[in-house]
Amino acid sequence: MKKGRKNSIADVAGITVGHHTIKNEQFQTGVTAIFPHQGELFKEKLAAAVYVANGFGKSVGLLQVAELGMLETPILLTNTFAVGTAMNALFRYSINRNKEIGDSAGTVNPLVFECNDGEINDIRGMPITEKDVEIAMQSAQSNFEEGAVGAGTGMRCYQLKGGIGSASRILTFNGKEYTLGCLVLTNYGQLRDLKLAGYPIGADLVEYYQEKDTKEKGSVITILATDIPLNSRQLKRISKRATVGITRTGAFIGSDSGEITLAFSTQQKFQQYSAEFSSRQILNEEYIDGLFRAVADMVDEAVLHSLVKSKATKTRNGKAIYNLEQSIEILQKMQPNKKYQEILEYLQKFSASEY
Amino acid sequence: MKKGRKNSIADVAGITVGHHTIKNEQFQTGVTAIFPHQGELFKEKLAAAVYVANGFGKSVGLLQVAELGMLETPILLTNTFAVGTAMNALFRYSINRNKEIGDSAGTVNPLVFECNDGEINDIRGMPITEKDVEIAMQSAQSNFEEGAVGAGTGMRCYQLKGGIGSASRILTFNGKEYTLGCLVLTNYGQLRDLKLAGYPIGADLVEYYQEKDTKEKGSVITILATDIPLNSRQLKRISKRATVGITRTGAFIGSDSGEITLAFSTQQKFQQYSAEFSSRQILNEEYIDGLFRAVADMVDEAVLHSLVKSKATKTRNGKAIYNLEQSIEILQKMQPNKKYQEILEYLQKFSASEY
Amino acid sequence: MKKGRKNSIADVAGITVGHHTIKNEQFQTGVTAIFPHQGELFKEKLAAAVYVANGFGKSVGLLQVAELGMLETPILLTNTFAVGTAMNALFRYSINRNKEIGDSAGTVNPLVFECNDGEINDIRGMPITEKDVEIAMQSAQSNFEEGAVGAGTGMRCYQLKGGIGSASRILTFNGKEYTLGCLVLTNYGQLRDLKLAGYPIGADLVEYYQEKDTKEKGSVITILATDIPLNSRQLKRISKRATVGITRTGAFIGSDSGEITLAFSTQQKFQQYSAEFSSRQILNEEYIDGLFRAVADMVDEAVLHSLVKSKATKTRNGKAIYNLEQSIEILQKMQPNKKYQEILEYLQKFSASEY
Amino acid sequence: MKKGRKNSIADVAGITVGHHTIKNEQFQTGVTAIFPHQGELFKEKLAAAVYVANGFGKSVGLLQVAELGMLETPILLTNTFAVGTAMNALFRYSINRNKEIGDSAGTVNPLVFECNDGEINDIRGMPITEKDVEIAMQSAQSNFEEGAVGAGTGMRCYQLKGGIGSASRILTFNGKEYTLGCLVLTNYGQLRDLKLAGYPIGADLVEYYQEKDTKEKGSVITILATDIPLNSRQLKRISKRATVGITRTGAFIGSDSGEITLAFSTQQKFQQYSAEFSSRQILNEEYIDGLFRAVADMVDEAVLHSLVKSKATKTRNGKAIYNLEQSIEILQKMQPNKKYQEILEYLQKFSASEY
Repeated sequence: MKKGRKNSIADVAGITVGHHTIKNEQFQTGVTAIFPHQGELFKEKLAAAVYVANGFGKSVGLLQVAELGMLETPILLTNTFAVGTAMNALFRYSINRNKEIGDSAGTVNPLVFECNDGEINDIRGMPITEKDVEIAMQSAQSNFEEGAVGAGTGMRCYQLKGGIGSASRILTFNGKEYTLGCLVLTNYGQLRDLKLAGYPIGADLVEYYQEKDTKEKGSVITILATDIPLNSRQLKRISKRATVGITRTGAFIGSDSGEITLAFSTQQKFQQYSAEFSSRQILNEEYIDGLFRAVADMVDEAVLHSLVKSKATKTRNGKAIYNLEQSIEILQKMQPNKKYQEILEYLQKFSASEY
Repeated sequence: MKKGRKNSIADVAGITVGHHTIKNEQFQTGVTAIFPHQGELFKEKLAAAVYVANGFGKSVGLLQVAELGMLETPILLTNTFAVGTAMNALFRYSINRNKEIGDSAGTVNPLVFECNDGEINDIRGMPITEKDVEIAMQSAQSNFEEGAVGAGTGMRCYQLKGGIGSASRILTFNGKEYTLGCLVLTNYGQLRDLKLAGYPIGADLVEYYQEKDTKEKGSVITILATDIPLNSRQLKRISKRATVGITRTGAFIGSDSGEITLAFSTQQKFQQYSAEFSSRQILNEEYIDGLFRAVADMVDEAVLHSLVKSKATKTRNGKAIYNLEQSIEILQKMQPNKKYQEILEYLQKFSASEY
Repeated sequence: MKKGRKNSIADVAGITVGHHTIKNEQFQTGVTAIFPHQGELFKEKLAAAVYVANGFGKSVGLLQVAELGMLETPILLTNTFAVGTAMNALFRYSINRNKEIGDSAGTVNPLVFECNDGEINDIRGMPITEKDVEIAMQSAQSNFEEGAVGAGTGMRCYQLKGGIGSASRILTFNGKEYTLGCLVLTNYGQLRDLKLAGYPIGADLVEYYQEKDTKEKGSVITILATDIPLNSRQLKRISKRATVGITRTGAFIGSDSGEITLAFSTQQKFQQYSAEFSSRQILNEEYIDGLFRAVADMVDEAVLHSLVKSKATKTRNGKAIYNLEQSIEILQKMQPNKKYQEILEYLQKFSASEY
Repeated sequence: MKKGRKNSIADVAGITVGHHTIKNEQFQTGVTAIFPHQGELFKEKLAAAVYVANGFGKSVGLLQVAELGMLETPILLTNTFAVGTAMNALFRYSINRNKEIGDSAGTVNPLVFECNDGEINDIRGMPITEKDVEIAMQSAQSNFEEGAVGAGTGMRCYQLKGGIGSASRILTFNGKEYTLGCLVLTNYGQLRDLKLAGYPIGADLVEYYQEKDTKEKGSVITILATDIPLNSRQLKRISKRATVGITRTGAFIGSDSGEITLAFSTQQKFQQYSAEFSSRQILNEEYIDGLFRAVADMVDEAVLHSLVKSKATKTRNGKAIYNLEQSIEILQKMQPNKKYQEILEYLQKFSASEY
């Protein structure tokens, strides 16, 4: 399938992403902010939907998206114990820009998603401040880094280093190109389940690293964006297919893993103050299968991006957290074989920086 | 139906409620804390369920209750823009009492519910601090005040003064008494829809006060508690019947109103560290209709408590917000009639302090 | 609120309703068919939604409406054990009219709703044939009977005689009139809970008839129709407010009662074979509260229509099933009082035939 | 993971499966019946749950399972247009065995699941009778056939021949062995997406067969059974992991595909007439991940069983529908390579009859 120019969520026109990374002796954590468009989101809301594959999670704002089918703030990703602070930051951000909020208008619905980075980061220390969140928002741009950055700083994926990954796909309708993009925050999966190109590489790595099998305590957040005109029901349908991409590398949606997808369409705008009826375009459902296939494919690739672009680090207890590619290189050096070579070649496609 | 001794949620053994009220020139708001039992909730979780009648709301913690069917923190009620701060307070409360949270165990799921008190309170000022939340938690006891107190301080109900209300019912199974209790935070409804004892008193009050018909921007939160052994599926079923009680006074679940119910059973405990299988009692579904009828009846009464016990006040713009009973007394003085007299007698049952 | 000319679901242009009644020594049952428009539904589908207030029921077709947000067949109402036969009839009806179904196209999704009329009707006898269903469909017209007719023949409501009821409301947007209509099949509620105009008339009737309190085994089906352009998410939202109307007479949504609402908009059509994108009108959510209030009001009235228009009969065991109005007339004759008189006057508004 | 002795759903004690196959010039279709236990299901119901991954389907009985968390009839699988007839057969089956149904008790909730076999079978002909359904039920035993048999007779999977597949896994808790079993009816997927052992064999087959890419119009039904004591909430959680197994071979949950899972536990029985409270065992949620991994693994294997055990046939228009293994053998003969050889060896594990 054809990819976007950056192969990232920012291929959908108008989307920017900002990171703020906190990395020191005690903390490895951060915030990532996604702006769905560059206008005033409270006044120009977008059609949106959420899908919860597994609800062991503390993300906020989903209720109202489910009820009204729209979003009205930027989207924040961070660690679990920073959700309250990120909410506060979004409340203040929205209030400051819209004097009617909490006055003549109602309130505003902040969207904050989280994973638990407590293996690597001293999450109990609760280091993230509203100022940190603001920095992430202020640094948003269409060219952004992937890997162990922003909210991805302290995340683990398949017990290796995970973090932020992104990808995009181009679809053509009526001779016109449309874009689907995604951004994932990966903090899920057990090493023994990892498969790459069908090969159970996880089992080899478990043996080599003598990795203990731990209970899954992770999560994975997927943000889907498109300029195809979809309503919230259709956005929910494509959100469900994110799970197909998430599990292609071997995971099974663990019990303690919050697996949540948010999807929005930049072509379905709702003006805050508008007439009784409005007219909007919508995709004929007969053509939605192409989007489903693209979502599964692109989310799978974004997961791989998050793995190959995240540098090795250590947990807060000093245990090594490896990078996927380096780990396989070690295996290949120890017992060179064709399969490891194939996988390394396969991964090199995902490690090259696209921007 | 038989009522509990206090006719409040605290008739369910072990439950305590605390308020912290902020009331000054600029602010009329607060926090209410509910403790489902007096042990360590993180280590001894309770079966729980949530039901969202209308999702225009920013309450947090619902995802995980829906997935796992249990709660693990005290329950906080406050204004919309204090939810992030209340989350922070619950994170810190839980971390401080359980050193394994975010370390050897996973994280913890704070439960915070909200209504928008922005008509009366300067909600944009965001006055509530973590310290305020702690005070509410520390003041919890089984005898607690109802009306314009704690989270109820700045709420409106049917455009009159609303706030906190509570009620309880006693059911007998196998010759043994069980208790159902509820606490509501009322901030919903339009005056013109208000009916009492079948009489459309709201219409008379709209005429008298020349009250403008405003768009509903409220919400109503219902907390249901019981010592009947119910699993989370059954708790969700009884939660749905709260809406029957909420609408008995004439409301219709407005679009911009977050109408959310949380229910828990103190007789279905989940030990954090326990064996592979455990044994638990459960109510035979054939007997659940009695609970449904009791929930509808008791929630209706709790709404009336919230109305009659909430003293008149003014909006932040100086507009009067009336007390229900006083309003009808005025009507009765102006044009004495039998209906007003009947309603006043009916309301007196609900205004007497039960504790 | 302003009512439609017929005060029935057929006030929404294009809707017709047909009944087939089976009434003899053994059976009192039937079929009711609703045509959402007069064209070919499979080729010109309508936006639709379902809401299940309580899922103790065997209605079919809801899954696909929930997924795709549209309907593609007429809607049938009948008794529980006739659902399979009604499905067969709808399969054949659709196949016969559309040679592509099950050939070049996929299959078709029949919509059949049911209540258990087993108290009055010998439901175990399964008398309804596909031919009976066809007769109901063939007899559809815009002027149709209410009461103990068609699917309503053997139904009970508040332990009195129930059946088919209908009502409508007119709303104005931009100076243009739009219609909301509903049809209910009432087979729910316990006599002791019945309230009319706020008076607990049910308690008086229980005493007079020495009616035993039985476990609720009923159901209530509500069909909502409108020519306001609403998408399926909005239709689901208005469907939830049907429950407000259903419970205004005192019911509490019993455990064994299937309480299900289907809603559709005749102004949101989906052509079976169409272009990749289409344009459609949609109501601005800010204006939806008027619809919610109208739905609650109109469904409450339709329930009353079903009660007052259903003639007294006997159960299959010979026990009398009374008509509501006649029952109160008896009370009024025995102990004349102002309240009974008021209720009778109130009910006379609903018993007059509107067509 | 350890497999059960039969590697089928019948490894869960008490489960039997029966088929009735209709295969002639015009029709290739049938019925499959699953008995969750050998007692009277209406009197001894089982904890159950349903999960709808994609609701483009006409299966019936799901509403009540979702509400009450239990099943009370055998489970039938058949083609789409036979669902009404199968419902009728289950109504009559249940009525005949329980004279209280529709009399002193309420009604009964038939469970019928379907896929559209219209490519191979003349589904418009509606050949299945109630007698055919009864034959399937009467032939139930613990040793049953897989492949193109019963409901699987006319199904396609990845555009190859699909049908019935089954598998099981053994888990150990407290030193005691428990069983998870599944049965799938596969009628989903597009050939070009098929992957086996990570190799995109589907692409090679599309090229060889010059297979046109068609819109997915299939479905896949998964029945999960276990003797682990799980409540309906937990059964719903394991049901969601069936989708992980379904998509491991490359599918993405197509828009027009009804993907539905039903799960039940034979160790959570509900007596129809019982005391107010009962006591039941339940799995501690901390141990559920092992079940999730087993479900994904076993459902993936059952899909492969359905493919390798289904003999090639022709569509009703005479187009060949190939068997998976034979197709790869052809490729291997034409251009022998190591990958095809590996896949054939991999598949031989699944084609051997286990019983």
